[in-house]
Amino acid sequence: MSDYKAPLRDMHFALYEVLGFEQHYQNTPGCEEASTDVVSAILEENAKFCENVLAPLNAVGDQEGCQWNDGVVTTPTGFKEAYQQYVEAGWPSMTHDSAHGGQGLPHSLGILLSEMVGSANWSWGMYPGLSHGAMNTLSAHGTDDQKQTYLTKLVEGAWTGTMCLTEPHCGTDLGMLRTKAEPNADGSYSISGTKIFISAGEHDMAENIVHIVLARLPDAPAGTKGISLFIVPKHLPAGDGSAGDRNGVVCGSIEHKMGIHGNATCVLNFDGARGYLIGPPNRGLNCMFTFMNAARIGTAIQGLAHAELGFQKSLEYARERLQMRSLSGPKNPDGAADPIIVHPDVRRMLLTQKAFAEGGRMLIYFAAQQVDRSEHAESEEDRKAADDLLSLLTPIAKAFLTEVGFEAANLGLQCFGGHGFIQEWGMEQNVRDCRIAMLYEGTTGIQALDLLGRKVLMTQGETLRVFTKMVHKFCQAQEGNAEMEPFIAPLAELNAKWGELTLHIGGVALENPDEVGAASVDYLMFSGYVTLAYFWALAASVAQAKLAEGDGDRAFYESKVQTARFYFQRILPRTQTLETTIKSGAGNLMDLDAEAFAF
Amino acid sequence: MSDYKAPLRDMHFALYEVLGFEQHYQNTPGCEEASTDVVSAILEENAKFCENVLAPLNAVGDQEGCQWNDGVVTTPTGFKEAYQQYVEAGWPSMTHDSAHGGQGLPHSLGILLSEMVGSANWSWGMYPGLSHGAMNTLSAHGTDDQKQTYLTKLVEGAWTGTMCLTEPHCGTDLGMLRTKAEPNADGSYSISGTKIFISAGEHDMAENIVHIVLARLPDAPAGTKGISLFIVPKHLPAGDGSAGDRNGVVCGSIEHKMGIHGNATCVLNFDGARGYLIGPPNRGLNCMFTFMNAARIGTAIQGLAHAELGFQKSLEYARERLQMRSLSGPKNPDGAADPIIVHPDVRRMLLTQKAFAEGGRMLIYFAAQQVDRSEHAESEEDRKAADDLLSLLTPIAKAFLTEVGFEAANLGLQCFGGHGFIQEWGMEQNVRDCRIAMLYEGTTGIQALDLLGRKVLMTQGETLRVFTKMVHKFCQAQEGNAEMEPFIAPLAELNAKWGELTLHIGGVALENPDEVGAASVDYLMFSGYVTLAYFWALAASVAQAKLAEGDGDRAFYESKVQTARFYFQRILPRTQTLETTIKSGAGNLMDLDAEAFAF
Repeated sequence: MSDYKAPLRDMHFALYEVLGFEQHYQNTPGCEEASTDVVSAILEENAKFCENVLAPLNAVGDQEGCQWNDGVVTTPTGFKEAYQQYVEAGWPSMTHDSAHGGQGLPHSLGILLSEMVGSANWSWGMYPGLSHGAMNTLSAHGTDDQKQTYLTKLVEGAWTGTMCLTEPHCGTDLGMLRTKAEPNADGSYSISGTKIFISAGEHDMAENIVHIVLARLPDAPAGTKGISLFIVPKHLPAGDGSAGDRNGVVCGSIEHKMGIHGNATCVLNFDGARGYLIGPPNRGLNCMFTFMNAARIGTAIQGLAHAELGFQKSLEYARERLQMRSLSGPKNPDGAADPIIVHPDVRRMLLTQKAFAEGGRMLIYFAAQQVDRSEHAESEEDRKAADDLLSLLTPIAKAFLTEVGFEAANLGLQCFGGHGFIQEWGMEQNVRDCRIAMLYEGTTGIQALDLLGRKVLMTQGETLRVFTKMVHKFCQAQEGNAEMEPFIAPLAELNAKWGELTLHIGGVALENPDEVGAASVDYLMFSGYVTLAYFWALAASVAQAKLAEGDGDRAFYESKVQTARFYFQRILPRTQTLETTIKSGAGNLMDLDAEAFAF
Repeated sequence: MSDYKAPLRDMHFALYEVLGFEQHYQNTPGCEEASTDVVSAILEENAKFCENVLAPLNAVGDQEGCQWNDGVVTTPTGFKEAYQQYVEAGWPSMTHDSAHGGQGLPHSLGILLSEMVGSANWSWGMYPGLSHGAMNTLSAHGTDDQKQTYLTKLVEGAWTGTMCLTEPHCGTDLGMLRTKAEPNADGSYSISGTKIFISAGEHDMAENIVHIVLARLPDAPAGTKGISLFIVPKHLPAGDGSAGDRNGVVCGSIEHKMGIHGNATCVLNFDGARGYLIGPPNRGLNCMFTFMNAARIGTAIQGLAHAELGFQKSLEYARERLQMRSLSGPKNPDGAADPIIVHPDVRRMLLTQKAFAEGGRMLIYFAAQQVDRSEHAESEEDRKAADDLLSLLTPIAKAFLTEVGFEAANLGLQCFGGHGFIQEWGMEQNVRDCRIAMLYEGTTGIQALDLLGRKVLMTQGETLRVFTKMVHKFCQAQEGNAEMEPFIAPLAELNAKWGELTLHIGGVALENPDEVGAASVDYLMFSGYVTLAYFWALAASVAQAKLAEGDGDRAFYESKVQTARFYFQRILPRTQTLETTIKSGAGNLMDLDAEAFAF
């Protein structure tokens, strides 16, 4: 059973046939180098690395895990060597600024690579993945000196980065954080405190680790407005720029986790570690958002990655495993039984995975386009529009895709029957690895509040309308296309309903702010299903056009139309329930006294 | 954080206030000894054992797992000693026939004990749990000699039992099984073959293990009609009845699994092992059904067990963990933040767990009543009615409760944020342990075919009507009760719709048998939601009556009414989506060519 095969045909479909990446790159300043030939060559090269080097290490990472010994963390067999290959091939520098050794390719391309790396081996991918966040933060907020010292090393891949926010008593509620930064005479700071859940916080894959740390200056205001951002390297840079003396940050332990065993989740003890302020004092949280938005799209990819991996493996199994006969008569009469893909319920499980993986891919790639546009589009207006779209889609992509990705991973396991529960098939690892995605970088509940509260209600629905208008235009353009009618009618209706539900919640929330929290997760899931419906309708329209043109790849395009049909008939109706539960109001959640939940 | 507290108050409510167990035991021949005092004393005693002995071993079992060494399996520290205590207290014999050393108490009482044992430590509970199935099979189909030799030892708890069905190439499709039984001159058989996934198949907790094995006699018909049932003891009984010579059955390995690490899942190699035919030749599968139906109710309990355990732990955490302020103003102004139970979405997650745990409890106990009645009710008609109800409710309870139990376990984990992913809190173990429940004893898909195909359509809906009539009568009896109207109106509507959907599927299935498989899982889930709605409506009516009477326990009964309201407003609307997807037909699953699922 193969480990992972990069779905290059489907990636091509999403990029070029559905989302027009060729024109996107041509028309976006600074992205012109990403010609179709260049992109194809990069994807193929990265696919080989993911399939041949990373995928075989996925089970190894799970079974060996990371080992902690007196502050030193050893990664699983092969992880370090794979990282060396990755660095030698120049992958870390792909999308970063040429001023610091980068190749200056569009950020969207980095997202495509993350998908393949993450699908092949999520735990491994987190080591270089965290570095990108640190690099983006340094690019945006670092001084020239800081960029010279740290960014260059990160871009090269010689050093890796982390993001140190969480403390034992505060995860979501960063206002409660206690890590202190005392000024030193030389302009640096002494950082003291304990950080937990630091992914890739300590390891043996690179010669140095650059921690981006949230801490409080003396006399900083309480709460989130008194948090500053610091660079705290594991080794202080020596005069020649190499990793020098050990700094006062030590990995106190690593967590024993449900999954992603190959990635070290560290407790980091900062004991007067030397740190350097990055960005203005007390504005650390704002600076951190650069990091967090990228990290959230990065986590959204995890939903797609596990859906794709589970789909590939369960499809292979369903075609090979012989068990029972089709209810409509034997389909493999010469065999001992039929392959289980003949059974309608197995197909339901496979198609659900397929719809979420391929639909999620379109959503992620569309968001990736907005990343490019929000940075590089010619006009301020275009950049703003892209930024609005991105800020709306980020919580949807993060929470919705990880929720349905987890559903998909579980359905992949379910296709294997009892074998799915056994380690050797890899399906249970896929579920365990996936489970973290709904928790870190802001839980589903936090993303839902971000979407409904901050992104939608606080902008009076303006941000939402950027998306719904686009959907509306698409629906209008398809008017009169009879073949598209089964997709356009429900999409248009739900698109309008999305706005109505928003107005409804906005109205009741005026009376009772808890109505926002009561509706938020169901609203987010509703938003996700409608968003994916748009992309599946888009895919169907492209595929139908190709079929009408007589394009050679008939089976592929017919499969797209069928999957869109499955999505609209079997998945999208979940919005019916969500509409009802959203409208049911906060009373059924809030009226029960906290003491009366159990006796 | 406590491990597990038996929910005796809620168990009492379900048993005596909702389901009338006092009268049930009084009116069912052979159950009269189970007076309220006797039952209460037993439950309290068992609760202590589960809370104090089993629950603390739950994490131990997960972390140590079972060890295999050259055919010998060592269970986790403390498991063996706990089993000795369990045997000494007489728990194994509770519900078995006094003719073989049992205490002759009703089977339903055994189900109550299984709930507590399983909630405290599912992996441990499977060792004695499997024995009950073997005992039931021996009781029903064994000769007097076989009962004397094996049943007595099992009832005593000196020996344990297993159920050996699955082989590497056949799980669901038992017609494909290959294990052979060759007759010996002395009337015994030589059993040869490989069985996999044998829970509790080898261990160090008891002096002997009685395997109940499916195998084929020479010249047996192909398929399921050529399967016979055999007793294959690990040690052959010596002249004095004790465990004598080692038989030719060896544990070849144990599986590395996602969860239930404390239970040994064995590959058993039968190499000319001596076996004894039980029941008539070639009727093994029919005999095995005795075993399987009990096992399915046993597995249904697992959904309840993990929902209850996750609910208890996440409720405690939600009351203690301080993070963020309530959107409607601080609720804990003197603290650093509010406890997270103030947040509506945390309440949604807690109430979902509560609704499934407490609702599942009523469903399981009701099924347990039918077990008693189907065995002991005075009239043939009553026994038949109970048996019909049980046969309908078994696949619903097994598949629906394990599906929603898994949802609940995941929501329990989610309440902990990132901490939920960390081993030490026990929430991720709860999810991993729960995951198997949707797979073994027939997957959700298999249960759904059993429900819709065998139980409902093959009886022309007769079995279903036994239940829907009962619901209908309840709704009629509540007419004019304004307080019950919010429950009765949707329940009555969905009860009728259940029948309509059945007719609809029966109709389309005449044209295309794949329509059954295409609708089956959604139909099963629809059935489950309506079934639980009935029990929640029943609970609400009891609680409202108690409140009207001015019963002292106001907070408890108000909590029941609120939870029923939550269930009806936030969970039951899932039936809307299911109705739509059921009616969407088989085309969206079957029209795609198996080769076109991916490219």
